[in-house]
Amino acid sequence: MTEKSTKAKVTEANEAALELGTRSDSERSASLHRIADAIEDSQEEILDANAEDVREAEEMLASGEYSRALVDRLELSPSKLRSIAEMVRSVADQEDPLGKTFTARRLDEELELYKVAVPIGVIGTVFESRPDALVQIAALSLKSGNAVILKGGSEASSSNRVLFEIIRDAASELPGGWAQLIEAREDVDTMLGMDDSIDLLMPRGSSEFVSYIQDNTSIPVLGHTEGVCHVFVDSEADLSMASEIAYDAKVQYPAVCNAVETLLVHEDVADEFLPDIAGRYRNADVELRGDEATREIIEAKPATTEDWSTEYGDLTLSIKIVEALESAIDHVNTYGSKHTDSIVTAVTERAGTFMRAVDSASVFHNASTRFSDGYRYGLGAEVGISTGKTHARGPVGLEGLTTYKYHLEGSGQTVGVYAGDDANPFLHEEFEGEWNSGRLSEE
Amino acid sequence: MTEKSTKAKVTEANEAALELGTRSDSERSASLHRIADAIEDSQEEILDANAEDVREAEEMLASGEYSRALVDRLELSPSKLRSIAEMVRSVADQEDPLGKTFTARRLDEELELYKVAVPIGVIGTVFESRPDALVQIAALSLKSGNAVILKGGSEASSSNRVLFEIIRDAASELPGGWAQLIEAREDVDTMLGMDDSIDLLMPRGSSEFVSYIQDNTSIPVLGHTEGVCHVFVDSEADLSMASEIAYDAKVQYPAVCNAVETLLVHEDVADEFLPDIAGRYRNADVELRGDEATREIIEAKPATTEDWSTEYGDLTLSIKIVEALESAIDHVNTYGSKHTDSIVTAVTERAGTFMRAVDSASVFHNASTRFSDGYRYGLGAEVGISTGKTHARGPVGLEGLTTYKYHLEGSGQTVGVYAGDDANPFLHEEFEGEWNSGRLSEE
Repeated sequence: MTEKSTKAKVTEANEAALELGTRSDSERSASLHRIADAIEDSQEEILDANAEDVREAEEMLASGEYSRALVDRLELSPSKLRSIAEMVRSVADQEDPLGKTFTARRLDEELELYKVAVPIGVIGTVFESRPDALVQIAALSLKSGNAVILKGGSEASSSNRVLFEIIRDAASELPGGWAQLIEAREDVDTMLGMDDSIDLLMPRGSSEFVSYIQDNTSIPVLGHTEGVCHVFVDSEADLSMASEIAYDAKVQYPAVCNAVETLLVHEDVADEFLPDIAGRYRNADVELRGDEATREIIEAKPATTEDWSTEYGDLTLSIKIVEALESAIDHVNTYGSKHTDSIVTAVTERAGTFMRAVDSASVFHNASTRFSDGYRYGLGAEVGISTGKTHARGPVGLEGLTTYKYHLEGSGQTVGVYAGDDANPFLHEEFEGEWNSGRLSEE
Repeated sequence: MTEKSTKAKVTEANEAALELGTRSDSERSASLHRIADAIEDSQEEILDANAEDVREAEEMLASGEYSRALVDRLELSPSKLRSIAEMVRSVADQEDPLGKTFTARRLDEELELYKVAVPIGVIGTVFESRPDALVQIAALSLKSGNAVILKGGSEASSSNRVLFEIIRDAASELPGGWAQLIEAREDVDTMLGMDDSIDLLMPRGSSEFVSYIQDNTSIPVLGHTEGVCHVFVDSEADLSMASEIAYDAKVQYPAVCNAVETLLVHEDVADEFLPDIAGRYRNADVELRGDEATREIIEAKPATTEDWSTEYGDLTLSIKIVEALESAIDHVNTYGSKHTDSIVTAVTERAGTFMRAVDSASVFHNASTRFSDGYRYGLGAEVGISTGKTHARGPVGLEGLTTYKYHLEGSGQTVGVYAGDDANPFLHEEFEGEWNSGRLSEE
């Protein structure tokens, strides 16, 4: 029963995607502005539904099943709703990610090839219990012309249901099935098998969950399982800068994937650097785990090999002393998760070596790993952060929700005349031009 | 035993990839020129090994297991070897696909974000028995800075082994493990499980084989299972142009994935168009299968629903009469394989509607589907054609073998000052600039 209805929803989304992809930017943006207005106008209804979710979550908190942080993230307020509406407007006002011609190439006279940005099609998403996640993902999908299957956390089910209905009603001039809400865990499994109808999966959640998705579908998956990020304090680092960066990267918000988990320190500066930063960390209640060399300088629990590949997501940090830039690079490439890694150094060349050799989506020089984020990168908003190496890497915004299509405009050409012994040669000249629905005919 | 050695090869490739990615374009291109020279200098050795493969294939041909076409594709000649060497040189001389800065954005003063083209890492490839495939794939991988695992058809094993050794020896200044040859079918299964070490799989072969790969790995897969391509002859078509295109698309080379399988004809022109083209097809020994309306006009076997989604790969063609442009679009989106579809029409607007609505990697106007090919598109060469919708679509050349990385150049920034109530604003200004190994330090 559930399965049948999920399949029907995905099929509907698939049909809607074909039509949505042909809607103009002004139509998609106008719908987004209507959605933003509707969210503000329905404040009471949304807060009522949200209060229900919060009430249930408080009960789970009392019984020890939920954390305070989860309940806090769940709770909406009038000011939060206003900022959600603002976020939708800012997505609406971004440059159109569709229709752009990436390259135009003349293959021969009157035979022109255009590589054009188009939506991907149907995006299947699974996200955590912040109710603003549903709105953000729906807004980015709509702006990029994609149909979207939304599966939020069950803790936010009442809020999600109301927000979903407001979005769908406000965008009633769009092809009906462009957004679909699914609610049960079994529905996710149904999605995993629908590789004919879903073009991309974007799961957010625990690393076990994302791995489960990757292992159980042949649909392409964009996401990250872990954020094991590093800060490397080089021998040539400005140590007070290094202290600010190492502190911010761990303490400013330790629960997120772009927080640092392992601090690597060059042996030449370890004696001078470690006692100061260890004191600051201790004042912020950070638990330190160090290798042997570290523990000769500061107090710390012994770090095991497991620590090097652990995402604590909490006020815990492992520290290792390395003897050279190359050892730091090796450590990051061996134990990191290809997410975000930063070197602090005053020497350009050493930064360049690190940034070229470290195989991560984001590599930083003299900046906190916490900058690795779609909003901070100027992408407007993000649907997630990818640690995979194909399609889209790092924070994924509108551009990561598009793909391209080749449009070839001919005047009757056949391949036969370009083959064999007296084959016509190709021109293969790039030129400035935009594809604009069949320019060569009707002359 | 076999498994262990494949794992060792992949691990070696993984280490080599990290180093290869930091080599300059001139180093990579010089290696390619040395490979091209070595192929020409080793002509005798290669032809001897190839003769062995051909001898064995002739035996299989005699026993009916192989086709004449397979044996022909397998056979090398001095002139084929020269053109293989030329292909390697042309890959060498392509523009460097790496290092390019796609966008440069100032997040704040002295906080600059660069999105830079980098290699993907380790590419696992499985390809058919043409021995030139091994050289082409190895050349494209090297030019794009990727390590590559090569698994060719067993029919070409002697040729492949010799070519592989020549390539490795000629490129001895590169990190040793960048190219790896594997030979057994079980080795492919070993690759499928190595999602920690292989970043992308590019299988070529039967649609069953590609589906098997997709269903049995969590590594991203780029390729196509089927090429069910369409030509739609619109009511507004120039019918003599339509005849040339429909004929070329089927007859010029029917065994390839970009050949047409279903001809859609607008009912307004069916009476005039079909008898002529049917006569030409019959002279070329094309078997026709038509829907009822078609068979009222010309002689053809009845087409079943199965025909609409069948890739014949041979001199067989299905024909359907449609009553409107929209019905043609629906048919293509329902039964096609998102590969290549062409409309023949003299009306710009109708072409635009078709090209926007058809959800395929390549959509053509007044040109044969057979143009869908990396060489004809001007991509230099291709590693394959993708019918997936993420990462790379259509013919995949050097660009499809690259990804990007974010480089952030700071001067000590922490996220704390950009958060909270009196947060610093971001600038988010795009500017013209290339990342060049740490420009901000050492002033």
